[in-house]
Amino acid sequence: MNFKEEQGLRIARIEEIIKKYLPREEGFHRTLPEAVNYSVLAGGKRLRPMLMEESFRLFNGTGAVIEPFMAALEMIHNYSLVHDDLPAMDNDEYRRGQKTTWAVFGEGMAVLAGDGLLNLAYETAAGAFSFAADFDQMSRIAKALRILGAKSGINGMIAGQTADIEAESGKNPLTQELLLFIHEKKTAALIEAAFMIGAVLAGASDEETARMETAARKIGVAFQIQDDILDVVSTQEILGKPVGSDEKNNKLTYVSLKGIEPSRQEVERLSREAIGILNSFANRNEFLTELVKSLIHREK
Amino acid sequence: MNFKEEQGLRIARIEEIIKKYLPREEGFHRTLPEAVNYSVLAGGKRLRPMLMEESFRLFNGTGAVIEPFMAALEMIHNYSLVHDDLPAMDNDEYRRGQKTTWAVFGEGMAVLAGDGLLNLAYETAAGAFSFAADFDQMSRIAKALRILGAKSGINGMIAGQTADIEAESGKNPLTQELLLFIHEKKTAALIEAAFMIGAVLAGASDEETARMETAARKIGVAFQIQDDILDVVSTQEILGKPVGSDEKNNKLTYVSLKGIEPSRQEVERLSREAIGILNSFANRNEFLTELVKSLIHREK
Repeated sequence: MNFKEEQGLRIARIEEIIKKYLPREEGFHRTLPEAVNYSVLAGGKRLRPMLMEESFRLFNGTGAVIEPFMAALEMIHNYSLVHDDLPAMDNDEYRRGQKTTWAVFGEGMAVLAGDGLLNLAYETAAGAFSFAADFDQMSRIAKALRILGAKSGINGMIAGQTADIEAESGKNPLTQELLLFIHEKKTAALIEAAFMIGAVLAGASDEETARMETAARKIGVAFQIQDDILDVVSTQEILGKPVGSDEKNNKLTYVSLKGIEPSRQEVERLSREAIGILNSFANRNEFLTELVKSLIHREK
Repeated sequence: MNFKEEQGLRIARIEEIIKKYLPREEGFHRTLPEAVNYSVLAGGKRLRPMLMEESFRLFNGTGAVIEPFMAALEMIHNYSLVHDDLPAMDNDEYRRGQKTTWAVFGEGMAVLAGDGLLNLAYETAAGAFSFAADFDQMSRIAKALRILGAKSGINGMIAGQTADIEAESGKNPLTQELLLFIHEKKTAALIEAAFMIGAVLAGASDEETARMETAARKIGVAFQIQDDILDVVSTQEILGKPVGSDEKNNKLTYVSLKGIEPSRQEVERLSREAIGILNSFANRNEFLTELVKSLIHREK
């Protein structure tokens, strides 16, 4: 089985895990679970739960304790999309070729659906405690929960969304430092959560978990720079969305700051360093290495 | 010291607890913690954390493990207000005489501030695990966390907000059953969380916790019916906000459904039953009984 086939199978399995934790569409408030399920089931590569599970495997993790955290992280990613798409934010009517949640259910319901998803993420993750049979397992789950909160929160992903909005409004001068802050928080933070939670729940040491955090940050930033490169060099046909939008929107990107070639070199460097870290552990996870390469060197 | 003085002292102490968990206003994203802190520090009676702490005392709870949960519940209450006030929801520019978060910081930032507060609530509550020294304490905190999630979530408070919005849009027929659903979810759910978490963290049994849940539900519904009564019988001078707004907005209330006198009797009945439950435990908490009476029989 080649990498793409293996990835496809894993996506299907992750979908099944996520579905187990989605709400039933019933009751006086049934529009809420409908909107929640619509937004979660609208597709996507399930990248964050996949990275989490592969990190868990890298440290020889076994059992179902990882599953509620995989679902929770995907819910957090999805709530952030639902709120980002709102007219008061990015005002996007379509995502992955489908109408966004607010475009289908209205703005008020999209606010509530995002809130519901974020809350459901923590309900779901807290459900992992039912797998814990001793103090050590409890402690690991508690630690994973705190990582999830920190990486998703006010000093994590939401900090990146805020800095991004404020950069566009011209509140802060557009420097390389600010750009890196946005990439690290908005994109890398949830990848860090994925790697760290996978490691912690498998019983990795603090030192190992910290190295996984570093690898994740490099992957997240490289992923984002590659995104900026593709916006310039790709075609609409390959990318499936308009190219050149960053330049048109006068958006600060690594490419506009440094140029194409230095950006490519930066992606190379980050990628090499991240994979170096992943290959430095006692165990190997070939699928994870392939996955990281495919993310960073993607053509669309 | 009379009840009002005691209540004032407790509010001040709860404010100090909450402040410990609020974010620093710094970094590229500093507008976010500014908006979060603005919304939490805009006042309020800190009713939910107060009820939680009094429930904890009723079951002889001691120690600081309750504090992160008190702060977390107030954060959840506040995020729901920030999002409820949005133009896409209730479109309120003022609350308690102050500009609402979106009116000061803009709509996009208010969405993010609400998200940040909700996430911070779970970060804060998960911090309670640092107080746990054994498996039993861990288990109680995990249970409290799951109660917080369930009462705040898709089948808790957010269900009530959804049903309320949908009732106004005429999606569901306005029946007494629907009205009770909205009151129980939108108002009572967080009071149930307060009582149950206080009990669980103090080591109350499942049966005792279930009785506290029942008492909380009665208090929440009575509180809401009293709100509806005051909207009809009070004056703007006493209430500090326009009266008769429910009738003007053609809003379904217990009063419009049943009339004033039956509504008063219902408040009486629920209040008597709730206090009966609170007085049925081995221990007594006079302040809690006074607090519940003051809430239900308030004139504003």
